Amino acid sequence: MGVVADRAPEPGPAVPTAAELEQARARIAGRVHVTPLFTSRTLDEQLGCRVVLKCENLQKVGAFKARGATNAVRSLTDEEAARGVLTHSSGNHAQALAFAARARGIPCWVVMPHDAPAVKRAAVEGYGATVIGCEPTVADREATAARVADATGATFVHPYDDVRVIAGQASVAAEILEQAPDVEAIYVPVGGGGLASGTCLTVAAATADGARPAVAIHGAEPEGADDAARSLEAGRLIGVEALPGGRADTVADGLRTSLSPRTFAILRAHVTGIHRVPDDDTLAWMRFLAERVKLVVEPSGAVPLAALARNAAAHVGTTVAVVLSGGNVTLP
Amino acid sequence: MGVVADRAPEPGPAVPTAAELEQARARIAGRVHVTPLFTSRTLDEQLGCRVVLKCENLQKVGAFKARGATNAVRSLTDEEAARGVLTHSSGNHAQALAFAARARGIPCWVVMPHDAPAVKRAAVEGYGATVIGCEPTVADREATAARVADATGATFVHPYDDVRVIAGQASVAAEILEQAPDVEAIYVPVGGGGLASGTCLTVAAATADGARPAVAIHGAEPEGADDAARSLEAGRLIGVEALPGGRADTVADGLRTSLSPRTFAILRAHVTGIHRVPDDDTLAWMRFLAERVKLVVEPSGAVPLAALARNAAAHVGTTVAVVLSGGNVTLP
Repeated sequence: MGVVADRAPEPGPAVPTAAELEQARARIAGRVHVTPLFTSRTLDEQLGCRVVLKCENLQKVGAFKARGATNAVRSLTDEEAARGVLTHSSGNHAQALAFAARARGIPCWVVMPHDAPAVKRAAVEGYGATVIGCEPTVADREATAARVADATGATFVHPYDDVRVIAGQASVAAEILEQAPDVEAIYVPVGGGGLASGTCLTVAAATADGARPAVAIHGAEPEGADDAARSLEAGRLIGVEALPGGRADTVADGLRTSLSPRTFAILRAHVTGIHRVPDDDTLAWMRFLAERVKLVVEPSGAVPLAALARNAAAHVGTTVAVVLSGGNVTLP
Repeated sequence: MGVVADRAPEPGPAVPTAAELEQARARIAGRVHVTPLFTSRTLDEQLGCRVVLKCENLQKVGAFKARGATNAVRSLTDEEAARGVLTHSSGNHAQALAFAARARGIPCWVVMPHDAPAVKRAAVEGYGATVIGCEPTVADREATAARVADATGATFVHPYDDVRVIAGQASVAAEILEQAPDVEAIYVPVGGGGLASGTCLTVAAATADGARPAVAIHGAEPEGADDAARSLEAGRLIGVEALPGGRADTVADGLRTSLSPRTFAILRAHVTGIHRVPDDDTLAWMRFLAERVKLVVEPSGAVPLAALARNAAAHVGTTVAVVLSGGNVTLP
């Protein structure tokens, strides 16, 4: 107790400022798509509200991750950029960073476990990045990334625990507020919390002066990866390793990650609620989007729509935005 | 011989005039979507030309058929309309006619074989039409349709052998010419030839005065349903019943129909060529569209893109439009 009292209050993790959100948006303009909103009369009739689908599945590299990665890469000085960028991911962030690096003409290294699917490796290499294999353990992944960073001087860009990345993802919500000015709620998926955090910060900045009505932020995560819901309920960060079975268990492979202290703090301050979605619902709404809206989304991208469907009664007659966060699926 | 010489020259089947094409476009405006063009950098790189994808899979009822059916239904007098409309089809035209009838608040009857998939019946009934079962033979289908027409006074609207329907489908090309003014070729699927005919007539009208450069019309049909290619080669109408095996054999269920004398005459006069596409190519491009462009198209909708891919060398450096004609698939 005495020790605690003797210390200055711990500063929270850094968070993008409103100015940084605006700078990010300007920085990525023309380099990533302003994605369209899709609507479906059938969907509106089924849910009883006006649903606008923010099509990040149509974004560069097929996911919103292009925004954060592009902002991070474009934030580097020329000297930093020349040494390249580095990440460890086998998901959309790796493709996004490779895409952003190629667009700036700089090297990109991606540390990926030896047992990652060949298609993921090929996708990243297709954008011109160099894949470095590692053992499928956190320890070796981080040790390998550290070795690459030492050898190259490349800047490490985390998939979500990074102010520049969060500021880039925040542009999704900024576009929604312009494209659907009457929106009263936004549903976003929660994996590591980068997109959800960016959404929170954009909405907070836009509604800070009271000139614009409040917009509720609803997070959505798979039942089998409900670390964010548990964390908010407990008031402390609970990682996926503390879930039953010691890991996330869901078809939505983009949402198996844990929050970071930074994204947890942002969500805790701003989010209206986190919804748990069974995988069966996610798959049913993926199918709905394909059959009725003619859009391909990955499982993670359908989770927020499934969450809205379970909570539709709360939004009758209003406009609700749902972020279809990505569309990267491999068909059989 | 004497008999022929004694007769006045046989007039050809009626064809929509340029004025009727414009009237159709005005009539359906606001009732069907002006569909977007999608582009894909990956696709352009693979094919060596600039490809604009006309997204009729995002059209009302998921197919261009909404255009022709809406024009037909809106062309009726109030007295005719009150007696309703009728067709025999188990495909997109049936849904389209049901949709157009519901929009005008009039009855719609659809004659469909008893053994048609339940999902097709449900789709039509979902738009409020009444399905009348028949035996799965042409004779009983036509007899049943005639009985319904007699009993109700409903107007029969053919899926493609109808001036109003062709004029409606022609609006697809009119939008393409406005959305991509530099287009030099358009690839369309050929089933009964309604869409292809409308495309031909729109382009002919737009280029008649020489003020606009020529636009080539390329038809695309499955290898196993190449009745249009055979007809053009032979200079006479050859129906699918004359194909090997006595019927069309292709995964592209929307393209198993024969041309009519009307659509054959239009295609013969205007089309640059008809391309035969193996089903394997069609399925590969369906998959490409889903994985890379994030769009769901039905097999028939991917046939023109597959045809372009086989003929891409003819279009290097130019802008080519491809009509993704529909997106109605049922997922497993």
